[in-house]
Amino acid sequence: MRAYDIIKKKRDGGELSAEEIKYFIGGVTDGSIPDYQISALCMAIYFRGMTVRETCDLTYAVRDSGEKLDSSAIRGIRVDKHSTGGVGDKTSLVVAPIVASYGVKVAKMSGRGLGHTGGTVDKLESIEGFRTTLTDAEFVSQVNDIGLAIVGQSKQFAPADKKLYALRDVTATVDSMPLIASSIMGKKLAADDDCIVLDVKTGSGSFMKTVKESKALARLMVDIGRGAGKKMVALITNMDRPLGYAIGNSLEVIEAVETLRGRGPSDLTEVCLTLAAYMLSLAGMGTPDEAKRLARRAIEDGSALRKFMETVAAQGGDVRLIEDPSRFPKARYSHAVLSKAEGYITKVDTEAYGLASLALGAGRNTAEDRIDFSAGIILRKKTGDFVRAGGEIATLYSENAAAFASAERILLAATSLGDRPPEQEPLVYGIVE
Amino acid sequence: MRAYDIIKKKRDGGELSAEEIKYFIGGVTDGSIPDYQISALCMAIYFRGMTVRETCDLTYAVRDSGEKLDSSAIRGIRVDKHSTGGVGDKTSLVVAPIVASYGVKVAKMSGRGLGHTGGTVDKLESIEGFRTTLTDAEFVSQVNDIGLAIVGQSKQFAPADKKLYALRDVTATVDSMPLIASSIMGKKLAADDDCIVLDVKTGSGSFMKTVKESKALARLMVDIGRGAGKKMVALITNMDRPLGYAIGNSLEVIEAVETLRGRGPSDLTEVCLTLAAYMLSLAGMGTPDEAKRLARRAIEDGSALRKFMETVAAQGGDVRLIEDPSRFPKARYSHAVLSKAEGYITKVDTEAYGLASLALGAGRNTAEDRIDFSAGIILRKKTGDFVRAGGEIATLYSENAAAFASAERILLAATSLGDRPPEQEPLVYGIVE
Repeated sequence: MRAYDIIKKKRDGGELSAEEIKYFIGGVTDGSIPDYQISALCMAIYFRGMTVRETCDLTYAVRDSGEKLDSSAIRGIRVDKHSTGGVGDKTSLVVAPIVASYGVKVAKMSGRGLGHTGGTVDKLESIEGFRTTLTDAEFVSQVNDIGLAIVGQSKQFAPADKKLYALRDVTATVDSMPLIASSIMGKKLAADDDCIVLDVKTGSGSFMKTVKESKALARLMVDIGRGAGKKMVALITNMDRPLGYAIGNSLEVIEAVETLRGRGPSDLTEVCLTLAAYMLSLAGMGTPDEAKRLARRAIEDGSALRKFMETVAAQGGDVRLIEDPSRFPKARYSHAVLSKAEGYITKVDTEAYGLASLALGAGRNTAEDRIDFSAGIILRKKTGDFVRAGGEIATLYSENAAAFASAERILLAATSLGDRPPEQEPLVYGIVE
Repeated sequence: MRAYDIIKKKRDGGELSAEEIKYFIGGVTDGSIPDYQISALCMAIYFRGMTVRETCDLTYAVRDSGEKLDSSAIRGIRVDKHSTGGVGDKTSLVVAPIVASYGVKVAKMSGRGLGHTGGTVDKLESIEGFRTTLTDAEFVSQVNDIGLAIVGQSKQFAPADKKLYALRDVTATVDSMPLIASSIMGKKLAADDDCIVLDVKTGSGSFMKTVKESKALARLMVDIGRGAGKKMVALITNMDRPLGYAIGNSLEVIEAVETLRGRGPSDLTEVCLTLAAYMLSLAGMGTPDEAKRLARRAIEDGSALRKFMETVAAQGGDVRLIEDPSRFPKARYSHAVLSKAEGYITKVDTEAYGLASLALGAGRNTAEDRIDFSAGIILRKKTGDFVRAGGEIATLYSENAAAFASAERILLAATSLGDRPPEQEPLVYGIVE
């Protein structure tokens, strides 16, 4: 078998066999296929696409390219939620404790933030003492003990994807449905959960800009997961506005804790309850409607918050911060962003909001950047709200006051005003089962 | 400017600016753009194509990527012929002396053979003593003295093309019209002739398998050359059968000498006269019809043969071989290929004939292979001829008798027999001016 023939076959619109895909991904992993052939194949796939069968085989080859979690020691049904990445998306911090409070196991391996999107692991590290690196034995025993553990990806999961993504990123071949789906699912399947709820973000702050594209991606990923024997469901959720009001690491943890206390913003609360409902339902706790009632009860009776505190304690985090979020360290500087005109906020560019937060120090431009945990944005007005001229749209927080000017500029440019309130868009566009 | 943005623009169907193309080819030449971005752009060009304007700019950037011939010291009008590469194509050896015999300058830099096609420089090196490497001063003074010199490409002509071609060759991006045209013309324009006649080969032994594709490639290359201020014409010629009867280095030189003596095969003679006619006509020697009569006369009165002998002598070759071609060293072994059945030869796979000759030692699989100058094939029957069962189709020559079996197998498989003679196809399909 030769890499050349595989590239040519795809270039000419052919369907690659499982063997050809395995051979290629093997060569990507062990370095025997040079980068220039990999990028040529990615571009050919960009133009020719892949069948569902090819995409499944690609995903499984990526999954099998490295280590996997040995999950056999975990007792019970393991369920996970995976988001395609958004701005102000702190849902994992809320849904994982809800689900775990019912005895369903959540053995969560999360990513770090990069660019305009944040990462769950970074958010948790804003809790003083919280360890996001556990040994396999610690991880498994914590999940067996209290039902929930959240760590960073320390394992060499799907190294082929790491290599592929790095090349796609510099050769304009990221925006390809089969390559996106196999990248996400290849890593996800290596963690070997029983049930997976996908949260496919749609709109200005996400990979997929339209509901139609998002549904297609969701359909593909659900089929891939099911082909690997997993219970799957995907929610298409709205990322044309940030979820909740907080963007930035400790700011988002505080908002998540408020939500677990039943005092969270309504949009964030609703999306969390829906995600938790499908996670519980997949794990066998009734219909989605029944499971949603369970999820709501876990907030009302405090069991979800207790589960979160138990997890923070187990991983070495300072629980007093959760009991009283006003104890979180504050940013040294803050700055109010005032509206220049009056009107209804008709539209915001969520990605730009994420970039403004990045500029304040809350995120990373490159994998090596250090994060300022207290930096970020608290929105005072969101899409649909009326704002007066001189009224506050948002408060910025940073250790670096020099960053306010550019973050303010980005934020104001990303916020459109109009005479009439915009039409209300749904929080959840649909469910792909 | 960033390579990424250029790839993305082409991927999305945009037209690259001259500046973008220059920037990219600059990065190819100095190594600052990595191979994986180059191959991704080539694949995007494969799918999206290029406008004539883009292709011209690409060609000129390739031409300008390295050294050029300083042709200012050559007196008079310089004309060249370039073939896209065929099997048994010894036309350069015939047309260059015809044209030079009229005082038109032919300063020819030729390639070596690779794969199934031979190279003029290799053929000339089968003449004992013939030097295909001259200093610039020797080359220029020989052209000024006798009007003709033929050397290998010693200069660093168009290094960007060398890099691009090497990558295209292993990433399935060779078959792209703008990339083929810019590769051929980028090198050709670096030699800075005044007039160029292109011989675009069509059919089984060439890049372009159909007349339509060949005409499109010819049109593009003529426009590129004209855009650079050159007088241009292209002939679309038939490569569905080898030209003449000889394939292999000294065998082809012998056939070329016979043609210069007026005793050559009719197909080869006709194509050579047509090519020479357009070369002379571009150089100002009348209409193509008038120039064709001049070309015929140069053969009839022996002036073309004398010019060839003068050239061989000037470059150190043994002129006695040209005076009496029976003096050429013979291959140690020969083998007659006999037909298994009787019938008319309806079709041959010219590329396979070239590969059979390669198997006998007449060509190179890699740039490092040594050539057996006396190896090759003399065809006894060609397309349209009737052959008896047991009748001889071809004679094989080699220093390596063990190669006969596979060469014979290739040759027989490449020769189709039928009950009726095939329709006669033209030698020249058309002229693109």
